[in-house]
Amino acid sequence: MGAGSLTLGAAATTLSTPLGEPQFHWTMVTTWPRNFPGLGTGANRLAESIVAMSGGRIAISVHGAGDLVPAYDVFEAVSKGKADMGHGSAIYWKDKSPAIPFFSSIPFGMTASQANGWLYHGGGLDLWTEVYDPFGLIPMPVGNTGIQMGGWFNKEIRTTADFDGLKMRIPGLGAEVLARAGGHPIDLPGKALLGALKDGSLDAAEWVGPYNDLAFGLYKAAKYYYYPSWQEPATVMEAIINRRSYEALSPDLQAIVMHACKAANQDMLAEYSARNPVALQTLVSRFGVELRRFPDAVIDRLRSLSAKVLEERVSKDELAARVHASYRKFQLQSLEWAAIDDATRSMRDGLL
Amino acid sequence: MGAGSLTLGAAATTLSTPLGEPQFHWTMVTTWPRNFPGLGTGANRLAESIVAMSGGRIAISVHGAGDLVPAYDVFEAVSKGKADMGHGSAIYWKDKSPAIPFFSSIPFGMTASQANGWLYHGGGLDLWTEVYDPFGLIPMPVGNTGIQMGGWFNKEIRTTADFDGLKMRIPGLGAEVLARAGGHPIDLPGKALLGALKDGSLDAAEWVGPYNDLAFGLYKAAKYYYYPSWQEPATVMEAIINRRSYEALSPDLQAIVMHACKAANQDMLAEYSARNPVALQTLVSRFGVELRRFPDAVIDRLRSLSAKVLEERVSKDELAARVHASYRKFQLQSLEWAAIDDATRSMRDGLL
Repeated sequence: MGAGSLTLGAAATTLSTPLGEPQFHWTMVTTWPRNFPGLGTGANRLAESIVAMSGGRIAISVHGAGDLVPAYDVFEAVSKGKADMGHGSAIYWKDKSPAIPFFSSIPFGMTASQANGWLYHGGGLDLWTEVYDPFGLIPMPVGNTGIQMGGWFNKEIRTTADFDGLKMRIPGLGAEVLARAGGHPIDLPGKALLGALKDGSLDAAEWVGPYNDLAFGLYKAAKYYYYPSWQEPATVMEAIINRRSYEALSPDLQAIVMHACKAANQDMLAEYSARNPVALQTLVSRFGVELRRFPDAVIDRLRSLSAKVLEERVSKDELAARVHASYRKFQLQSLEWAAIDDATRSMRDGLL
Repeated sequence: MGAGSLTLGAAATTLSTPLGEPQFHWTMVTTWPRNFPGLGTGANRLAESIVAMSGGRIAISVHGAGDLVPAYDVFEAVSKGKADMGHGSAIYWKDKSPAIPFFSSIPFGMTASQANGWLYHGGGLDLWTEVYDPFGLIPMPVGNTGIQMGGWFNKEIRTTADFDGLKMRIPGLGAEVLARAGGHPIDLPGKALLGALKDGSLDAAEWVGPYNDLAFGLYKAAKYYYYPSWQEPATVMEAIINRRSYEALSPDLQAIVMHACKAANQDMLAEYSARNPVALQTLVSRFGVELRRFPDAVIDRLRSLSAKVLEERVSKDELAARVHASYRKFQLQSLEWAAIDDATRSMRDGLL
């Protein structure tokens, strides 16, 4: 364990431990800085809930990015059993399998509530389980950032030509789309973004949304804050569990781990729902950030490029094609209901 | 136990029971017909998860409305220890305390994701706990229907005058608002609605949304399906736990019950997100239901009546006033973020 780890196993000793000392000592690695708001603290709470519900039979040490393994090595580390569990997002593993990005967020994809509907009650999680199975990993949705933002820019985006040569931090399929639009996508872990924006190695960067972007201080290096997030409308976070570690647990402990993931999924989205609005107000009124909306023509162009990127990605892989078909069917059948949802939301400012 | 109960305690014997036979035999009463889609099945899954995570140390028998106690006696039954746990919605107990309706849904109130943000990370659950404390009850949010519908009507609503003398099933504060608009609100449990619409004791009825309304066959007795739901934009379901029953549990079992509630909260909303869209398609394309939107002038009038009803309700009760202030503050500070959320949703039909 690195010096930077948060050892929740220690906390477990203060809990009632009906079965005595810990039977399992789990290691959790994450793609986030330790205790990072929402993402890191959500991973901590996931671990705490497993420790508490197991009465201390499972102890868990939680590691931030770069502690035990670098952020982007989390998938590999859990797959190989170097850690028992990981917390991150499928968006970082898109090169492991063509189907993977659907389980995080794809350009012009689902909202958070649609994604949860698809995953838990629309066949999505079964497909995800199938996709991760060859890696010895069991996936669970654990957190969703909700609506994201389009990113931080120091110049206005008026036409797609403004993307020409733009060095922008953007991961996942959004990166491939940006490249086709003429930009230079660069993938960096969140922690590196402020420095890279300041020293000019990045012209623009997207991270998450107000709550997380404020925490990294991105407003210090860019003036315009663009929406909507065409690239990640709402992104699913994941827990990945090493299958052997999981199978070593008794059925009640397995149930505890799985339900802890579902509770943490609820909790993290709720945290974003509460914190994003306040952080946005802070960014605008205290730090003078200027909100900008991408022009419709830019969105239209990105949409058509996204469709091509997606089509090429799934066309040569049977499993990816099946995942895409399931995802698309869910989105399509939700259209009419989504219109009623919108009509209801439009009343929102009524009673204030 | 009535013959209609679903005894999950029996299922527990098939699970790993590291601590032997059940230590606790809990009774759960619900306001729903047994196994009713989403609400009843969600209550079942909540019980199942507690049984599984506890390794069978807690056994739970789940009762539908009218089995052990009538639907609207659930609060009283758990408060008095006749049952250990209940599943229903705070909307049914508005006469117990002026503050209660804020924990289900109020006219022109929060969306599901805002409600969860407020409850878990905006102080809402602390207030709810305070409000239920004198009744010996511990509340937890367990499920949210998401966006609801405005209800079923056999005549079109063109102006507020069309509410004159209208006998409509509608619970909660919406009922008080309808009365001020000239209607006759009638509160009936969901199970009674189809019969009452058919025999003319009701002219109109609102229940939940497409998934649940289809299950009760309400389309058989009314032609027009109105939106938006001004009266319950998105309604929180609750678990209520008898405090003495809860305090008898060891800390790990307490943690299991609480996290089971949070996981079930996530799961139920996801189910509605998946099932409502499909049910709406069925209602419209198979059963010829006609969707109608309330005219803006009607919504405006109901909004102003709602503000009055709410103000009068909270003005004479210190705790209700505090709850209202907290709720309102959360809604207000979410306005700017909600506009960005809307802008992102408007891209939704992009990639289909």
